[in-house]
Amino acid sequence: MTSQCWPLNRWMWQVTKREGLAWDGGAKEFNWHPLLAVTGFIFLQGIAIVVYRLPWTWKCSKLMMKLIHAGLNVLAFILAVISLVAVFDFHNVQNIPNMYSLHSWVGLIAVILFSLQIVLGLCIFLLPLSPGYLRAAFLPIHVFSGLFIFTTVIATALMGITEKLIFGLKDPKYKDSPPEATFVNVLGLLIALFGALILWIATRPSWKRPSEQLLHTLHNNEPLSDATKTDTAMSERQDPNTEARKRNGKTEE
Amino acid sequence: MTSQCWPLNRWMWQVTKREGLAWDGGAKEFNWHPLLAVTGFIFLQGIAIVVYRLPWTWKCSKLMMKLIHAGLNVLAFILAVISLVAVFDFHNVQNIPNMYSLHSWVGLIAVILFSLQIVLGLCIFLLPLSPGYLRAAFLPIHVFSGLFIFTTVIATALMGITEKLIFGLKDPKYKDSPPEATFVNVLGLLIALFGALILWIATRPSWKRPSEQLLHTLHNNEPLSDATKTDTAMSERQDPNTEARKRNGKTEE
Repeated sequence: MTSQCWPLNRWMWQVTKREGLAWDGGAKEFNWHPLLAVTGFIFLQGIAIVVYRLPWTWKCSKLMMKLIHAGLNVLAFILAVISLVAVFDFHNVQNIPNMYSLHSWVGLIAVILFSLQIVLGLCIFLLPLSPGYLRAAFLPIHVFSGLFIFTTVIATALMGITEKLIFGLKDPKYKDSPPEATFVNVLGLLIALFGALILWIATRPSWKRPSEQLLHTLHNNEPLSDATKTDTAMSERQDPNTEARKRNGKTEE
Repeated sequence: MTSQCWPLNRWMWQVTKREGLAWDGGAKEFNWHPLLAVTGFIFLQGIAIVVYRLPWTWKCSKLMMKLIHAGLNVLAFILAVISLVAVFDFHNVQNIPNMYSLHSWVGLIAVILFSLQIVLGLCIFLLPLSPGYLRAAFLPIHVFSGLFIFTTVIATALMGITEKLIFGLKDPKYKDSPPEATFVNVLGLLIALFGALILWIATRPSWKRPSEQLLHTLHNNEPLSDATKTDTAMSERQDPNTEARKRNGKTEE
């Protein structure tokens, strides 16, 4: 029994050993980097991307959903910046050069693009001054760049995992497949799977938030106006999965 | 002058040194792996994804475009498999374990998903027996999984570059940023940029291949029928970038 449990015990020991957090320039300060990057830059950003599309948020006003979307993204950005400060500080204390790896290049580009995305998004979609035609023209770019940045961050995380397992595992090495390597590889697969799920939800027509007019009509149990009927008919023609949206609409009511 | 050229000379030497190809179980056999993976699994697959959407292919028949799309993907798959054989053979000769890294896990999953994608695509979209409703139901899944596999392969390449630069550069090391490291990092950025371009083209409504009926009408300079007019009107309502498509259509004529 003991010999069977050995790999598990060893993994528990290794994870526990690496798991601590501190701000002392040592390995425990480094640990803030993956922790905040994954929870903030991947998990929160992913939730922010699909928050409009979850049917139980359709009852909330568009403005509130915009504020939640922006708030989650700003929080993700703050956590990403703290995660960067942690790794730069760790490198400086340990005399490890900064910004030499492809992981660091792609990651920094993602943070810069993300900051631009947030500033432009706030100015164009939240400031009441911006004209409607500008919002309409910028929306497809905003959506594409948001999904692209999210995907880039996931690729960056997978490169970071690769680096950390090569540098961090010494005896046994990464190539010897110790339990910690298998565990972190599985974590990498789960991150990729989370990315796939977010991209799926974000690109399905059936998960798209219905128009405000249609939502208003559904909420008030009003008969559909001619304009709303036309809108609905157009949506049905555009969208082969309208049945799913109808079901979601009914559930929401 | 000589001292200024030194980094360039050194890089040329290093690239030349690593550039050779052979099938001898040594480092030159390994080189087939990134070469075929990038040219086949990334470049050819990327071209296969957007080949329907390039306006100068709209004049070709749908069947011919399907055959080109399938042919390029099958070629990409063959090159990906040869690239796998090269790296497995290299590992076996050099006594390096196979399949321990996240790069290898994600890469193998991508190859398996790609083979499934090709088999299902051939059976559903090329076999004349498959019913129309099946094609319509499967198309969104085929498109999403195609783009997801392509993105996964790019993430795998970035992990592979990270691994190779850490293991391959010894004196100076990767962290010392020798010219070869900078060069290969830039190659990684170019791969990511290529991925962004393919994803942009593949998701823009204005690059979508028009319906066969509309193409037939445009080719024959026939006046638009009522049905075609309705189709065109629907497209315009769905698609804010119809102007671009109109321009492309005119150019093609």
